[in-house]
Amino acid sequence: MGSTFGNLFRLSTWGESHGGGVGVVVDGCPPQISLSEEDIQIDLDRRRPGQSEITTPRKEADRAEILSGTFEGLTLGTPIAVLVRNKDARPEAYSEMSEKFRPSHADYTYQAKYGIRNWQGGGRSSARETIGRVAAAAIAKKVIQKCFAPDLEILPFVESIGALQAEVDTDTVTREMIESNIVRTGDPNSVEKMIDYIKEIRGDGNSVGGVVGCVIRNVPVGLGMPVFDRLEADLAKGMLSLPATKGFEVGSGFEGTKMTGRDHNDPFRMVDGKVRTTSNRSGGVQGGISNGENIVFRVAFKPTATIMTEQETVSTNLENTELTGRGRHDACVLPRAVPMVEAMAALTLVDHMMRQRALCGDSQR
Amino acid sequence: MGSTFGNLFRLSTWGESHGGGVGVVVDGCPPQISLSEEDIQIDLDRRRPGQSEITTPRKEADRAEILSGTFEGLTLGTPIAVLVRNKDARPEAYSEMSEKFRPSHADYTYQAKYGIRNWQGGGRSSARETIGRVAAAAIAKKVIQKCFAPDLEILPFVESIGALQAEVDTDTVTREMIESNIVRTGDPNSVEKMIDYIKEIRGDGNSVGGVVGCVIRNVPVGLGMPVFDRLEADLAKGMLSLPATKGFEVGSGFEGTKMTGRDHNDPFRMVDGKVRTTSNRSGGVQGGISNGENIVFRVAFKPTATIMTEQETVSTNLENTELTGRGRHDACVLPRAVPMVEAMAALTLVDHMMRQRALCGDSQR
Amino acid sequence: MGSTFGNLFRLSTWGESHGGGVGVVVDGCPPQISLSEEDIQIDLDRRRPGQSEITTPRKEADRAEILSGTFEGLTLGTPIAVLVRNKDARPEAYSEMSEKFRPSHADYTYQAKYGIRNWQGGGRSSARETIGRVAAAAIAKKVIQKCFAPDLEILPFVESIGALQAEVDTDTVTREMIESNIVRTGDPNSVEKMIDYIKEIRGDGNSVGGVVGCVIRNVPVGLGMPVFDRLEADLAKGMLSLPATKGFEVGSGFEGTKMTGRDHNDPFRMVDGKVRTTSNRSGGVQGGISNGENIVFRVAFKPTATIMTEQETVSTNLENTELTGRGRHDACVLPRAVPMVEAMAALTLVDHMMRQRALCGDSQR
Amino acid sequence: MGSTFGNLFRLSTWGESHGGGVGVVVDGCPPQISLSEEDIQIDLDRRRPGQSEITTPRKEADRAEILSGTFEGLTLGTPIAVLVRNKDARPEAYSEMSEKFRPSHADYTYQAKYGIRNWQGGGRSSARETIGRVAAAAIAKKVIQKCFAPDLEILPFVESIGALQAEVDTDTVTREMIESNIVRTGDPNSVEKMIDYIKEIRGDGNSVGGVVGCVIRNVPVGLGMPVFDRLEADLAKGMLSLPATKGFEVGSGFEGTKMTGRDHNDPFRMVDGKVRTTSNRSGGVQGGISNGENIVFRVAFKPTATIMTEQETVSTNLENTELTGRGRHDACVLPRAVPMVEAMAALTLVDHMMRQRALCGDSQR
Repeated sequence: MGSTFGNLFRLSTWGESHGGGVGVVVDGCPPQISLSEEDIQIDLDRRRPGQSEITTPRKEADRAEILSGTFEGLTLGTPIAVLVRNKDARPEAYSEMSEKFRPSHADYTYQAKYGIRNWQGGGRSSARETIGRVAAAAIAKKVIQKCFAPDLEILPFVESIGALQAEVDTDTVTREMIESNIVRTGDPNSVEKMIDYIKEIRGDGNSVGGVVGCVIRNVPVGLGMPVFDRLEADLAKGMLSLPATKGFEVGSGFEGTKMTGRDHNDPFRMVDGKVRTTSNRSGGVQGGISNGENIVFRVAFKPTATIMTEQETVSTNLENTELTGRGRHDACVLPRAVPMVEAMAALTLVDHMMRQRALCGDSQR
Repeated sequence: MGSTFGNLFRLSTWGESHGGGVGVVVDGCPPQISLSEEDIQIDLDRRRPGQSEITTPRKEADRAEILSGTFEGLTLGTPIAVLVRNKDARPEAYSEMSEKFRPSHADYTYQAKYGIRNWQGGGRSSARETIGRVAAAAIAKKVIQKCFAPDLEILPFVESIGALQAEVDTDTVTREMIESNIVRTGDPNSVEKMIDYIKEIRGDGNSVGGVVGCVIRNVPVGLGMPVFDRLEADLAKGMLSLPATKGFEVGSGFEGTKMTGRDHNDPFRMVDGKVRTTSNRSGGVQGGISNGENIVFRVAFKPTATIMTEQETVSTNLENTELTGRGRHDACVLPRAVPMVEAMAALTLVDHMMRQRALCGDSQR
Repeated sequence: MGSTFGNLFRLSTWGESHGGGVGVVVDGCPPQISLSEEDIQIDLDRRRPGQSEITTPRKEADRAEILSGTFEGLTLGTPIAVLVRNKDARPEAYSEMSEKFRPSHADYTYQAKYGIRNWQGGGRSSARETIGRVAAAAIAKKVIQKCFAPDLEILPFVESIGALQAEVDTDTVTREMIESNIVRTGDPNSVEKMIDYIKEIRGDGNSVGGVVGCVIRNVPVGLGMPVFDRLEADLAKGMLSLPATKGFEVGSGFEGTKMTGRDHNDPFRMVDGKVRTTSNRSGGVQGGISNGENIVFRVAFKPTATIMTEQETVSTNLENTELTGRGRHDACVLPRAVPMVEAMAALTLVDHMMRQRALCGDSQR
Repeated sequence: MGSTFGNLFRLSTWGESHGGGVGVVVDGCPPQISLSEEDIQIDLDRRRPGQSEITTPRKEADRAEILSGTFEGLTLGTPIAVLVRNKDARPEAYSEMSEKFRPSHADYTYQAKYGIRNWQGGGRSSARETIGRVAAAAIAKKVIQKCFAPDLEILPFVESIGALQAEVDTDTVTREMIESNIVRTGDPNSVEKMIDYIKEIRGDGNSVGGVVGCVIRNVPVGLGMPVFDRLEADLAKGMLSLPATKGFEVGSGFEGTKMTGRDHNDPFRMVDGKVRTTSNRSGGVQGGISNGENIVFRVAFKPTATIMTEQETVSTNLENTELTGRGRHDACVLPRAVPMVEAMAALTLVDHMMRQRALCGDSQR
């Protein structure tokens, strides 16, 4: 319960950090979409640990196996199951966690909720679970491109790390700019500073948070459903379902609350025969529905909970005690959060595209 | 499609601003809960227009009629239908809108999505739709109190209007403090300033946004589901599904991204035989599951889109034109947003309480 | 919980026999479909009590009011709410039922399940609830005709009443043949016998069951989803959700189990450039998916539970007692079951049409 | 889309006959349930091919691997993934099927629906898919026993094969009686006749259908939801979702339609302090809700479509042609259908038990 996402393009992820593996079943992928394991691997590689000097050193190749749902390189329209085995599990690094709740982790809440938990590596609450999402989203992106919006681009990037703020122009940033550096920021001037800062924080046994910004370009008009399933509501849910997230804002966001309507409204103008807005404080959604402008949003990630310093906590015997972090962790999750944000955006969009097609047909777009 | 919320306590709202009425069907309300029309009316009155000198002057009594699902004052366990008739509709005030898209409203996106729209008063995109939510939430709150958490309190309040920031202590604020003033802020020192500012903005034919803060106290441990249906993810979705919202943050939110883990983590301590945290930057949720601390979150509302000034826009014939706002509107939605935020919080919580009971039984709590 | 049907064309019915009314909300109706209250009324009139000398004399005009979701005669794409007030309620006729469980009714099970029940007229378990389904299906049929299959015909008919078996040719039966007689059988030779039999049974204070057959013609190929949401599985669910139903069979049904594969298989042949089968023991579905042949199924309805004879039962005090039926009831529900079967078939089909369009697009068909 | 079953105990099956394997993810299993791979294997062994001289000779060990969701022998409350690899795939046996549609199989409808199909062994339409259901149901049965109804028994049995009718007393039949013979009938006198008949039919290259009866004993009162999710409606859907099924009836079924109400009604009497019925034509459900009596239903299975005789069909080039069956198949699916019927019954029941607990709490039962 709770591991399923989407109404039509519906995925169920499964798996724990230190169990037999992690994976996903996608029930609702359109047929005749070209799909290979390599299509999925590309995005898993962007997500996997050990990909650079500023990510966790856990060594996981994260090789994806497609178990069903394709035939001769094309999707069948039936469920696609993807399996990634866990390889570099080191449960012994977590033995102390079997007896103590790690502060600001999910150890205590899982125990309280279920009366049981897999204490090895965080079990189901590990970010390793996002493998299933990233794999499903790799499929979703192929569906979007083939069936719905060939030119659509989802471009998340690191906007800030701690107090270090990058300058990124959402109209011009490219995937190449973002992927060209291991921080995945869209601002070349910030790269070195951010890398140095992460290393410094890590050297100190500490951790840091940050913000991922995201722009989605070439979005069809008309995606999103009144009144509960507004596009921004479903994006917010998708983003807040990622580990370590604490906030979401779209368009003008919290800053926009300080403006007056006169300054905030986006005037409509005809441009090249299309209805356009001359500003985009709406962030590409109006009344919960995409208006064809860039969708722009931001996601807050808190500092990694695992730190290499002694902290106060309580034991599973409900006694006060202390705990020092162990295991292999990212001192800053932001670079690896980029493909996760991209995944949740793609999964949200493809589902709304299929819903819109169900309701209004192909001709509507 | 899109007008349904919740998995178990499931509501479907319906209705347009200027149609036959608005309402809701709740399918999934537990039986034997005491419920009267007055229970619902109390919250509708907090939401309705014309309630004070700083809200829209539209005159709607918003009288709720329970059409089904109760018998001799108790819920039956079967669907509860609630109907509120529209009375003070003035479609003529909107005749210009039949030919022009109001900037930063949903007129254009509805037209583009469906190829048709009810242009009278915004139709389905009108905040009038939230009547159904508030009515359903009045029921939800009775269920929470009777079946799950008698002492639980949901206390939203106006935290800021434009740049005016109230000082509210989420540990001590009371419903009385909030409801004692027409702005619904929890800070007595800000009341007058905020009222004056709203009047000034309205006098200028302008509008302004703001932030609603919310604290939920006495929350059972263990609510929320890994991994997609985290409690904060469902709260985010609920809040972003409200009209005019642009952002959501829980606990430390966006500010917390600037902290290091050492400063951000919430240490556990045993207090009175219970596992507690000595700080609450988590905002009451860890790993997507409530930890028993106060749930604290904030919601950003943009300035009202309708302003009484000429604005650039396009016509339904796709030609550039101008439009000046008409109709009766709130210059600031914040005071009336408070019961809406409360409604979505209650609806989110009751659904998770029922899901938790389904999964783990009564004994788990 | 349980009063919602459909994945995309989703309806929630509500209401009790003797409450404020009954109705339905349809969330997921495509936009721009011509729809009037009269469209709905036609089918409600076929369902309503008192329509002929062989149905219950309860006097209900069952006038439908569309409360939302249409504008200038067209659907908006947003929820359509339909309300039918109860008029001729006579709760006093049921006062004895407040203290005794009627045999083979739902009185006892509702009480046991919920710990409470509306004992007036069966409350939620009354066949009056099907008004919402019939209203929603009137909308569904318009959607099917406009968006998906203009020539599709759903033709249910009374196939048997008690041991009286009609002879109906599913290839040639027409709506005119069925609706030309108050029994709604497709066999002119059986009409008088069936009417006489129903009157005789009613005169005896007794009741009788029967079978509704149904043929659906001009069905698009490709409707139905492997593996759980097979078209026949969803039809079975829809039919068994109707009051008083005890069985469902499609194509060769139970009789077909006695055949060998050699005799049972439907050979394929090309006919007029189309893939056709030369027999139709499959009943129009293969592997859960429509093959373009007529869909043929049968639904068993048990004898009406209310009879005017003393029966053994128990009281709500859990003591043995006796009860004699009162109230106004059909001695045979079959004639009024015909529009109910039609409704569930239409609702099942439209949902699968929208699902197929979501998955494969318009071009697929 | 369509491979998901259940609202709370929700399973998604995946896999094709000749792909990488088949499996299931269960999202919604309560925590702290004892579960091992052996628990699942027992039921898979009852379902697997090659288990006796009257089933298909395909050699599949069907070994289940639990990939997630358990820890130290107990369920975690998070998704349980089960994988069964395909071993004895022989795609070459199906090469002719790549170019011809097998009569009364799903080849044509899958092709027409999706524009693509895996022609090897029927792909997704293969009965091999039911492995996922049987595995999930093995878990469901443990949940039922631990959390809801320790004494509940689900006992399906072969009631007829072709015209051979077994005599089975649903009040006294035991699992031992059923499992003691390879036909899985509950009537010792029919065993030899049925085995001989199946062998004879198979020797003739032909196939035969039959009926599976089922009794569920010690059912809690109050399971099932008005109005669409009646217990019998959900059972009907579950059963009709099984391959080769053509009919479902509960209690008196089609035969009961010939009775009058006076003969059909089940009188209530107090027995040992409980409300009981002195007959059970209702089949254990009244108004869609279990009344505590035995639930009794029957499921019709058509003759296996694959026969070893030349049949008329069409090619994928849409030309008339002939086809003779190949591959390894059951001449009669009934013995292996027994665990499949049991699986769908268990999955339907556990979901309704969890829904009832969500709505009414533990105390209700």
